[in-house]
Amino acid sequence: MSVTAAAGFRAAGVTAGVKASGGPDVALVVNDGPLDAAAAVFTSNRAKANPVLWSQQAIAGGTARAVILNSGGANCFTGAFGFQTTHQTAERVAERLGIGAVDVQVCSTGLIGVGDEAFRAGVLRGVDLAADALAAGDEAGLAAAQAIMTTDSKPKQAVVAADGFTVGGMAKGAGMLAPGLATMLVVLTTDAEADADVLDRALRAATRVTFDRLDSDGCMSTNDTVLLLSSGASGIRPDEAAITAAVTAVCDDLARQLHGDAEGATHDIAIEVLHAASEDEAVLVARSVARSNLFKAAIFGNDPNWGRVLAAIGTTDATFDPYRVDVHFNGVRVCHAGEPDRPREEVDLAPRATSIVIDLFAGDATATIRTNDLTHDYVHENSAYAS
Amino acid sequence: MSVTAAAGFRAAGVTAGVKASGGPDVALVVNDGPLDAAAAVFTSNRAKANPVLWSQQAIAGGTARAVILNSGGANCFTGAFGFQTTHQTAERVAERLGIGAVDVQVCSTGLIGVGDEAFRAGVLRGVDLAADALAAGDEAGLAAAQAIMTTDSKPKQAVVAADGFTVGGMAKGAGMLAPGLATMLVVLTTDAEADADVLDRALRAATRVTFDRLDSDGCMSTNDTVLLLSSGASGIRPDEAAITAAVTAVCDDLARQLHGDAEGATHDIAIEVLHAASEDEAVLVARSVARSNLFKAAIFGNDPNWGRVLAAIGTTDATFDPYRVDVHFNGVRVCHAGEPDRPREEVDLAPRATSIVIDLFAGDATATIRTNDLTHDYVHENSAYAS
Repeated sequence: MSVTAAAGFRAAGVTAGVKASGGPDVALVVNDGPLDAAAAVFTSNRAKANPVLWSQQAIAGGTARAVILNSGGANCFTGAFGFQTTHQTAERVAERLGIGAVDVQVCSTGLIGVGDEAFRAGVLRGVDLAADALAAGDEAGLAAAQAIMTTDSKPKQAVVAADGFTVGGMAKGAGMLAPGLATMLVVLTTDAEADADVLDRALRAATRVTFDRLDSDGCMSTNDTVLLLSSGASGIRPDEAAITAAVTAVCDDLARQLHGDAEGATHDIAIEVLHAASEDEAVLVARSVARSNLFKAAIFGNDPNWGRVLAAIGTTDATFDPYRVDVHFNGVRVCHAGEPDRPREEVDLAPRATSIVIDLFAGDATATIRTNDLTHDYVHENSAYAS
Repeated sequence: MSVTAAAGFRAAGVTAGVKASGGPDVALVVNDGPLDAAAAVFTSNRAKANPVLWSQQAIAGGTARAVILNSGGANCFTGAFGFQTTHQTAERVAERLGIGAVDVQVCSTGLIGVGDEAFRAGVLRGVDLAADALAAGDEAGLAAAQAIMTTDSKPKQAVVAADGFTVGGMAKGAGMLAPGLATMLVVLTTDAEADADVLDRALRAATRVTFDRLDSDGCMSTNDTVLLLSSGASGIRPDEAAITAAVTAVCDDLARQLHGDAEGATHDIAIEVLHAASEDEAVLVARSVARSNLFKAAIFGNDPNWGRVLAAIGTTDATFDPYRVDVHFNGVRVCHAGEPDRPREEVDLAPRATSIVIDLFAGDATATIRTNDLTHDYVHENSAYAS
């Protein structure tokens, strides 16, 4: 049910000593073809880790045959030595698989500034171990998903069986991960026949409405990578809409798993904006609430503090009248037309799933941003007591 | 040493039962002239409280004779009734002082959505009590400063004696205030002779480099108000530069007091950006770090996590090369040219005062943003356990 669910893919997850904890830390995913079309979306942070710098170049031609991933170090801001490590990693994978280094995508996650000799040796050892362990089937896919975990509490996998083809995937991370940054790594695989430009459009359409709308703590990683590889092994060439729908479904599934596993969180919050003038404005308004620490702390305290919602959306330049807005907390309209409505006592914020609905009365567009509450455990996890 | 330090001003602070806690909650500051020139800066949040909506209109002519302030309720999103409360408050002050309602500035602080009949009755009672208690001298100024406190641990006052004239002021708030929003209210008084346009330029120049560079938790209030009143009682008409310098000095003093009293904070952090291409870009880069929860949590944990600084500045579009940046924590250069430099162990983050210096090597501009760390107490204070 993971990266090995689609025909034509093998995977492995091994323990190579990169991670201080001694857990599995290197994963390898291999596309055995017959096709090798691929697409990727990388972090928009200008501070990009060495694996991102490499992978962006390597995938420019629209192909990839393998993905090597490590936890235990982000290999970011580690200078020329760090970039050489990434390059050597790709070359070692290529050597073991009989492909070119440019066919290899590299992903890393962990602390920024970690990428020394020991890190390099560990990752290269991991390449050899993983190449020996490559296998098809669920067990190999699960091992790969486990090897990319950092403080994730469980591996994240998803699969969609579409009409004659399959899309599978694995993910790690997303917000509130200690002690490093909230890196998100995702590898998606499909046995559909598809050209690189179709994969690229499908992947961008899918990430725009799934991972891009997850805003756990407003902090953008240097290593975020989402990859989509096509083996074509099903012999089926679906139309672009079908591929896009299947890829979006897998991304949505993985995004929900990331949302639900944000460390320290006690509430999974969906902020839905209705009747915005445009989808972009709906996202803008929802994100401004998702990034308000005062709002997030109130939710942790089970406090339906709608004033903090209005104060947050008032900082945007979206089209709406602040004095004509409705706000609902878990189905209870606590603010109507800019005035108090139902009593706060009617709102039950005890459940983990939390719904905030903001009606702007300004148009026909809607969007939902998923975030988490601001908790003692978030502060604890990210204040380096753990490191 | 407060709003009564300049000649021509009286003040009062009284307990009128607006605040649930039973502490002082209504303050009045009166300008006895001979002049009544005034200037103001209000929150840029589009969600503005009723007192802000009133005061913006009332001060449009460049004059004001009195300021009435209450804690215990923000009178924000309280509809037409709330606006009438503000209007009635101004009229009651005008009646008692024999001036026009339009000469009265109104400020409120407390929870959004609070502004019912009881609130109105309390504030109007406070007007009467305060009008009876008006006095010159330090004691009256201190009483006023105390009556506007919410969760401030102490009153905040400042004074600068310039060449022949005086500027004094009081402030409350700024970030991390529970259970309401982080409203900042500031009243500045001077006995210098000055026209309204001079006061306006001086106040905007002063707030731009002081209060505007305080970013405790990234959350903007609906009630923020900074007022500057001139009595002209000194008979001295200083040049604009002298007034601007004195007003800026008082604002800087008050901003530092607000910074140091941010509730829940264990570190007062100054983020200084050097060699930016412009002052705006220096502010942009510093603010992006000030708003990173991961960075702020790391400082709470005494962790010199420079990776989080680079990840935060990488999200801006400011002019610099992310791989050529230096980062110093409390004087120790932990990152040089995008690579690890001095060992993290050399950094001592135990002191409350924390210095982060980011050298962009991109120009000649510099700016400093003041923020605080993200702590368990911040979460506690703002998660409504207190309410």
